[in-house]
Amino acid sequence: MGYLLEQVIGRVGSLDASAMEEAQRRLDRLTKPPGSLGRLEEVAIWLAGVTGRVRQRLERRTVVLMAGDHGVVEEGVSAYPQRVTAQMVANFLRGGAAINVLARQARAHVLVVDIGVAAELPQAPGLIQRKVGWGTRNMAHGPAMRREEAVQAVETGMEVAREEIGRGAQLLATGDMGIGNTTAASAIIAALTGAPVEQVTGRGTGLDDQALRHKVKTIERALAINRPDPSDPLDVLAKVGGYEVAGLVGVILEGAAQRVPVILDGLISGAAALVAVRLCPQARHFLLASHRSAEPGHGYALESMGLRPLLDLDMRLGEGTGACLAMHLVDAALALVDEMATFQEAGVDDRL
Amino acid sequence: MGYLLEQVIGRVGSLDASAMEEAQRRLDRLTKPPGSLGRLEEVAIWLAGVTGRVRQRLERRTVVLMAGDHGVVEEGVSAYPQRVTAQMVANFLRGGAAINVLARQARAHVLVVDIGVAAELPQAPGLIQRKVGWGTRNMAHGPAMRREEAVQAVETGMEVAREEIGRGAQLLATGDMGIGNTTAASAIIAALTGAPVEQVTGRGTGLDDQALRHKVKTIERALAINRPDPSDPLDVLAKVGGYEVAGLVGVILEGAAQRVPVILDGLISGAAALVAVRLCPQARHFLLASHRSAEPGHGYALESMGLRPLLDLDMRLGEGTGACLAMHLVDAALALVDEMATFQEAGVDDRL
Repeated sequence: MGYLLEQVIGRVGSLDASAMEEAQRRLDRLTKPPGSLGRLEEVAIWLAGVTGRVRQRLERRTVVLMAGDHGVVEEGVSAYPQRVTAQMVANFLRGGAAINVLARQARAHVLVVDIGVAAELPQAPGLIQRKVGWGTRNMAHGPAMRREEAVQAVETGMEVAREEIGRGAQLLATGDMGIGNTTAASAIIAALTGAPVEQVTGRGTGLDDQALRHKVKTIERALAINRPDPSDPLDVLAKVGGYEVAGLVGVILEGAAQRVPVILDGLISGAAALVAVRLCPQARHFLLASHRSAEPGHGYALESMGLRPLLDLDMRLGEGTGACLAMHLVDAALALVDEMATFQEAGVDDRL
Repeated sequence: MGYLLEQVIGRVGSLDASAMEEAQRRLDRLTKPPGSLGRLEEVAIWLAGVTGRVRQRLERRTVVLMAGDHGVVEEGVSAYPQRVTAQMVANFLRGGAAINVLARQARAHVLVVDIGVAAELPQAPGLIQRKVGWGTRNMAHGPAMRREEAVQAVETGMEVAREEIGRGAQLLATGDMGIGNTTAASAIIAALTGAPVEQVTGRGTGLDDQALRHKVKTIERALAINRPDPSDPLDVLAKVGGYEVAGLVGVILEGAAQRVPVILDGLISGAAALVAVRLCPQARHFLLASHRSAEPGHGYALESMGLRPLLDLDMRLGEGTGACLAMHLVDAALALVDEMATFQEAGVDDRL
């Protein structure tokens, strides 16, 4: 394990129980039956536990969108060609992708990080160039990354998150782009949870039945050839993961260490979170599961971490799209705590 | 049935199939795998079917919050005293309730309608005074309303919606306030779906086990005494409903007739929608179920109408709170259709 990585893990603390109790007390004085705002109350209490503040707004939010390519696409596991990764990065930088639209709606900044795209990307505002490799190697034939490459990608993610928090980010969301990355994420989830590959593998961008069977076989082969050690999350990450997944592991750990809430997107973010939580179980307390992806592996990852998603909208796009939708619920939860009148203030009778 | 009511039912049309097909075609050209935005795509297509437009924003939105009292509270079916209805109306008008906070977040206007509060309410900006009665009678002893009163309340709701649409409202949401109204809503749902009372009855504002058993018995008694006819929705509404429920029936029918999408809130709105859809099955096509309430009867109502809620957040507050949260998803769906780049515009390769 890298020194920086060990250090960040040591800095991850626990939730602030007294702030959480104070948030609960305030919620119970507001003009509504106790608990009637359901999961919005849970979110408000959790955010108090993360930041230590009860009445707060988290206006400065960043989607860290990590992009990387996957050698395993040469096995034919995706419905789209590899060059789409770079083309979509260009689309993100011009503001035309789904994540741009949803981030604008949620007043979030999108930070695109080239951590492992297999193409030279022209410099552009909003693009952070931190290439650790030019796509991973084909995990069906051997390790996707060397362990040092995986650690370097995790530490790159930590660095990017640290810079963004340094610039004032109060809320981080994870996003991803990488043709082939549902194959890597499913492999990680199978390796770390022990679930059968066919149960954690989905159609990704839209495979038909035959291509889905081939994807399952490819992941099974990659696991058989590489024999990742489930008790060693970095071994799993390196052998069957990807640069963007590793980068997100770093973002998650740095957010947790700095007590900045991290909103997870879907399958790829879920796989990254699972690696992060296996490296550092305390990190789980700083994570919010935004939605449940239509990809079946995502549910396994969330369940293994004990995270319950806020939304379930049959989405399977990635990029951070689900995380941006959940920001509206976070905003709602915080606004309710901050703006609602108490029974006393409003002159409303409390329970009989 | 009243003449105005019969007229509005005759004006409810069907969804615009060609606009829906055009929306589907546009969604499939946008830079994402087909269908990967899941239920947001469904919402966008549905809204095209309602309004006939594919690229649109629905910026002018109103929560019609109907308030009324219930004679059945004298049976001890609520955790709060009846005067809380009027006190909460005052809270709405001062902007301190949950609905005010969530409506501000969603840029929605809250229109509070006194359609049957059992107290004289002082005039105030934002309050529409259209009292049809001073609370309903106790349905445990006889009909809550006379049939003419129920029809008058429905027609009042139609009128309020018509005025609001006349002022430019492009999206309506239903909200409610009324101590005791989960008792009325559960009774309506039991009568119209045939589900057992104990399965459609919940704790409302927070009853304990004993009080819940008493609430179930009270509803069973009301149904036994009044014998509402399940094939006559107005009979059910009059005998075991409430003024605010009836008002919302009118709002729903008028919205449907004018092709203005109606976002339903939770249990009370669900009971109103069930009455509306039994009066006019076509109306169902103009309704969006925002969330599934923690109240068990709500799921029965939604299932009976074939509506699948967008959110499931264990909420049980009413007022229109769930409907306001769903507006963010409506906005997201419409923004995606309108703002995302196509594969061609973005120079991104489509599927292999």
